[in-house]
Amino acid sequence: MREIREEDIGAVAEGAAVLGAGGGGSPYQSALVLRRLMRQGARVRVVDASEPASDEVGPILAGMGAPTVGIERLPTAGRFGHLVEAVGRALGRPAGFIAIGEIGGGNAISPLIGSAESGLPVVDADPMGRAFPELQMNTYMIAGLRPQPLLLEDAKGVTALLEHLPDARTAERYARALTWAMGGGAGLVLAAVNADQVRHLAIPGTLSLAEAIGRAMERARRRHAPTSEGVAEAVAGTRHLFYGKVVDVERRTAAGFARGTIRIEGLGSRRGQELRIDFQNEYLIARTGDRMEDVLLAVPDLLVLLEEESGRALGSEAVRYGLRVDVLGLPAAWEMKTEAALAVVGPKAFGYDVDFRPLPGDLLGRAAVPA
Amino acid sequence: MREIREEDIGAVAEGAAVLGAGGGGSPYQSALVLRRLMRQGARVRVVDASEPASDEVGPILAGMGAPTVGIERLPTAGRFGHLVEAVGRALGRPAGFIAIGEIGGGNAISPLIGSAESGLPVVDADPMGRAFPELQMNTYMIAGLRPQPLLLEDAKGVTALLEHLPDARTAERYARALTWAMGGGAGLVLAAVNADQVRHLAIPGTLSLAEAIGRAMERARRRHAPTSEGVAEAVAGTRHLFYGKVVDVERRTAAGFARGTIRIEGLGSRRGQELRIDFQNEYLIARTGDRMEDVLLAVPDLLVLLEEESGRALGSEAVRYGLRVDVLGLPAAWEMKTEAALAVVGPKAFGYDVDFRPLPGDLLGRAAVPA
Repeated sequence: MREIREEDIGAVAEGAAVLGAGGGGSPYQSALVLRRLMRQGARVRVVDASEPASDEVGPILAGMGAPTVGIERLPTAGRFGHLVEAVGRALGRPAGFIAIGEIGGGNAISPLIGSAESGLPVVDADPMGRAFPELQMNTYMIAGLRPQPLLLEDAKGVTALLEHLPDARTAERYARALTWAMGGGAGLVLAAVNADQVRHLAIPGTLSLAEAIGRAMERARRRHAPTSEGVAEAVAGTRHLFYGKVVDVERRTAAGFARGTIRIEGLGSRRGQELRIDFQNEYLIARTGDRMEDVLLAVPDLLVLLEEESGRALGSEAVRYGLRVDVLGLPAAWEMKTEAALAVVGPKAFGYDVDFRPLPGDLLGRAAVPA
Repeated sequence: MREIREEDIGAVAEGAAVLGAGGGGSPYQSALVLRRLMRQGARVRVVDASEPASDEVGPILAGMGAPTVGIERLPTAGRFGHLVEAVGRALGRPAGFIAIGEIGGGNAISPLIGSAESGLPVVDADPMGRAFPELQMNTYMIAGLRPQPLLLEDAKGVTALLEHLPDARTAERYARALTWAMGGGAGLVLAAVNADQVRHLAIPGTLSLAEAIGRAMERARRRHAPTSEGVAEAVAGTRHLFYGKVVDVERRTAAGFARGTIRIEGLGSRRGQELRIDFQNEYLIARTGDRMEDVLLAVPDLLVLLEEESGRALGSEAVRYGLRVDVLGLPAAWEMKTEAALAVVGPKAFGYDVDFRPLPGDLLGRAAVPA
């Protein structure tokens, strides 16, 4: 058991922005809400994935919506605390812990807000090791967990409890439609999980990883080095893929997602080349041309755009003409690279007729991949 | 207390199709489900609006969705019974009666299915005296009742419980989006009402009126008279507006509604004239030209299209080229013609810059309009 304190929030947010791989919403606005709660005395306790007692259950918390919406709305204080109470009522017993739904972007902070508001500890683990745009794209759902109960809460406190959902794809469709009607953003309980499910299905240590990445980026800044050095320090498998200037962003918010394509003109050693990145909230694929061998990286590996001046990771909603960016690739956690996972989060699941050629290694630097 | 028996269903359905004014979904398919339940021993008891005990509450039941969807799906047996149970769980106490959400079309039958499945009596009253396309368009919501709790159930048994909705228009937006994601049709509990609310806000006797209209149409058929005579017998204020042939139907299912325009070429004494009817699920306005005085009838008064050959009322989803139709106008119940009601269900609420010029009289033939 440890605690996240006010002075840790900045590092968690900065690292979560990296793990967002373009999505998950801005962590900086959520961080403001969390800071305010902590100044009012709220505390956020963190436990390891092995710590919840075997009879405990907890809600998987996240925010839902296109990040283009998120940048216009501060998360409503109280929403995640309400959701924790509502899941307890739906289950007929109070929750014992908070599970993170997605460690990328603002969704790393939402469960901490839920923890601060409910007093329940948050588990240092998540089911993606990054952000992904759809509800079926996480280790819980890939393993067949049903989204039960699913809860949404809008900015005005309207709650929706969905039950008897047959599968995560139906949950995705229904929750997406409702979130869109709610104005584009909502607080989400994806399901309730028990201690065993967290221990065996989630990727352990990803909240600590977010903080470690943020700390390493802070250290790099202090020594006037690029923040990409910090990222590489915290994630051993990091590759520098490209450096250049954003020359075009084609953007459309369609069917509840921010979709589009970014074109980056190479600078320095990349002069004369162009990188094209498609996104659906998250960055999906980076290509220098149309041939198979031109694919530099594809999901589930992480594409990270670090803006040169601030050194911060850019969400897809914040990319704009003229920004200079370093494009990094980070290897996904091994849990996202199993055959079952690739069927849900690999390039083909996003409509790309491209084989997944993984970066070597594991997001968390774990040596062996369990059978 | 009386009972609706298997041999009454046909008349209720036929009359409900008239009161549907083009919407509410086909009652004939729902009638099949109800007949099957009755053959299995289920009973439907009917009570007057004054009969529920003052401490009882009941769900307002209806189906939600575009009628174009309804014609492709039989209502799922069990859905309305589930909804009655679910509303009891949400309220913390069992329902004591079933309230009809909309007496027009299939929505007249859905509450009877809910009654057959739950064993609870259905109240002979509804909050429209017809069908209307949106959730705020009924006397309960016009009087300020909150849609609490709102429940939806899809064809696969997925339930959604929406709480803390601030108003009926928000309920409409959220429920419409979700129903659309659910495949276009869902069972709905619009709210729970208590006995006082049913007694003071609903329009009494409309289930009996549907049956009376159906019986009078049956009698007209037996004497080889047009069914329009039967309708006029049951509803004293009925006007014959037009007779002709459908020559064009422009149809689009947009934003969860079946919208469009029907053109009818006059026959007989109407030869040389054309009637244009706009619909949004229900028929909204009938015009012979573009001037104010060309409006023959507008909401909330009821437009009814009786197909010549079958004598049946046509839902907007069933109108097609070549059908010969009598177009009738029925005066709305006075509850739909108050200033507060017209702000929600009058022509202007549907975007028509047209004054409401009511047909004389009251749908139920009541002499005086209470102050």
